[in-house]
Amino acid sequence: MLPVQPAQAPVIYLVEPFGGSMRRQNVNLPHVFWDDAAVTRGDGCFETILVHGGEPVNLDAHIARFTRSAALLDLPEPVAETWRTATLEAVGDFVQESGLDPQDVEAKCQWTYTRGRETTGVPTAWVSVRPIPKEQLKQRKKGVKVITASRGYTLTTTDDTPWLTVGAKSLNYATAMAALRWAKKQGCDDVIFVDPATGRVLEGATSTVITVKGDKLRTPVTGGDVLPGTTQAAIFRLAEERGWRCKEKDLTVDDMLGADQVWLVSSVRGGVRVTEIDGTGTKAPSKKDEATVASLIREARTTV
Amino acid sequence: MLPVQPAQAPVIYLVEPFGGSMRRQNVNLPHVFWDDAAVTRGDGCFETILVHGGEPVNLDAHIARFTRSAALLDLPEPVAETWRTATLEAVGDFVQESGLDPQDVEAKCQWTYTRGRETTGVPTAWVSVRPIPKEQLKQRKKGVKVITASRGYTLTTTDDTPWLTVGAKSLNYATAMAALRWAKKQGCDDVIFVDPATGRVLEGATSTVITVKGDKLRTPVTGGDVLPGTTQAAIFRLAEERGWRCKEKDLTVDDMLGADQVWLVSSVRGGVRVTEIDGTGTKAPSKKDEATVASLIREARTTV
Repeated sequence: MLPVQPAQAPVIYLVEPFGGSMRRQNVNLPHVFWDDAAVTRGDGCFETILVHGGEPVNLDAHIARFTRSAALLDLPEPVAETWRTATLEAVGDFVQESGLDPQDVEAKCQWTYTRGRETTGVPTAWVSVRPIPKEQLKQRKKGVKVITASRGYTLTTTDDTPWLTVGAKSLNYATAMAALRWAKKQGCDDVIFVDPATGRVLEGATSTVITVKGDKLRTPVTGGDVLPGTTQAAIFRLAEERGWRCKEKDLTVDDMLGADQVWLVSSVRGGVRVTEIDGTGTKAPSKKDEATVASLIREARTTV
Repeated sequence: MLPVQPAQAPVIYLVEPFGGSMRRQNVNLPHVFWDDAAVTRGDGCFETILVHGGEPVNLDAHIARFTRSAALLDLPEPVAETWRTATLEAVGDFVQESGLDPQDVEAKCQWTYTRGRETTGVPTAWVSVRPIPKEQLKQRKKGVKVITASRGYTLTTTDDTPWLTVGAKSLNYATAMAALRWAKKQGCDDVIFVDPATGRVLEGATSTVITVKGDKLRTPVTGGDVLPGTTQAAIFRLAEERGWRCKEKDLTVDDMLGADQVWLVSSVRGGVRVTEIDGTGTKAPSKKDEATVASLIREARTTV
């Protein structure tokens, strides 16, 4: 068990988008201009990275996805070494300022990379590190009730939509946030998007779905409207080493209700077990079986 | 003909979201925080308003749409009088600083209203006024070549997507911007979205489509994936007084190619005639017919 962490000020580092210098930003001062494309258009991409044991986790996978997002958005390629260095600096400061043993520091690190100010055209880029939201820590313990919902649109990518930025982890998250607010009004904690045309389960608002049945781990087929999850990938890698049979496979709501366990996984919140779907309880696993999967997830997602 | 306007610094006024005070913001200093929902999620709404003859135009329609957008996004209702006052102050400053006769000042005014900082939950709100982008002035004269494209998704709003923010003029514009960048790479100026399933013309990336045929003005049926245009509405109102027959009607690309004239209209850029669609020239109207429609649009959109 990790000790309760004190409320602590975030650490922000501004990053030179073309590589080179970085500097700490006073967290009590704004740094984004009114004409930044992030503000005016939601135009940019991000990554959210877990800090565990005082170190950022799974950095290579995040850099790879961040680079892919930037390419899809037609942004200059992020300089991996600059982001890595800025992340280590920011996490180092955060750990030091926590006053805790580095081993005990868990935090949420976020990278933001925007198309920049209209007036300059130079991307804006920064790293933030801050405490993990309390609600997420609670959900790790108590699990989540979810509501399923249509995403409200069906992708129709064709040869004439080469510009479409699907697959980028972009800043256009307002729709997912609206779905989440709606779920909370219904007394639920999260949303799982389902394609109404096919009944195919897609993903959580900010997480990947994994089902467990016997020794099989399943996750919806990625690509198109399902973002490949860095955490899910890490879990599948470790699980296969341990003899689980892992596969991407189309899933329905009935598949989730028929599974032994259903999990939503993401970098920072980690694994949260789904206890209820649209008011119907999921199967209740034995404490032992739940603990086995919970440790698998924890171990996979905290391996630096 | 308006005189050439000098390069002039924008004017920004920060607005108290719950009404009351407002203050001018130094345009050379950032005012948006790293954890503002506009930055992290593209979560907020905006309006773009033409300033003509030194005054903001069509304010009531913009306030009505802004209020609707905020309601759809579940943001506190904007205080109309505060936005109106802030707009008049900001426009007043801009006019004064231009050194021109107020009658000669044309400008672009924008309202931004975000869900605010994660740490405070108080919306962030501001008004900006700045010169009209040169490219837009050029397009008014020369018209635009457009490329048609699927929007990349089809809306599937159903009873179980009450949270969907369709119809809000939200900050989630990255996809439209990506389509626009792609159009420019093909040597075009703009995009018209078409629904691939039905062939239905939707709208421009940041404008409404109007076709002219004989004495008929047509625009695609609004609602769903077609945002109601404040400028188009003003044009139809004036046109009907003048004996044009105006109607919302589903249109195809062939309807556009068969029309006497095709226009893209929006508040600030105004009316720009579409001269080419996917490489095929549109019908070339007589100078007189083009001028008639151009004046109709200009008059409608510049009536305060």
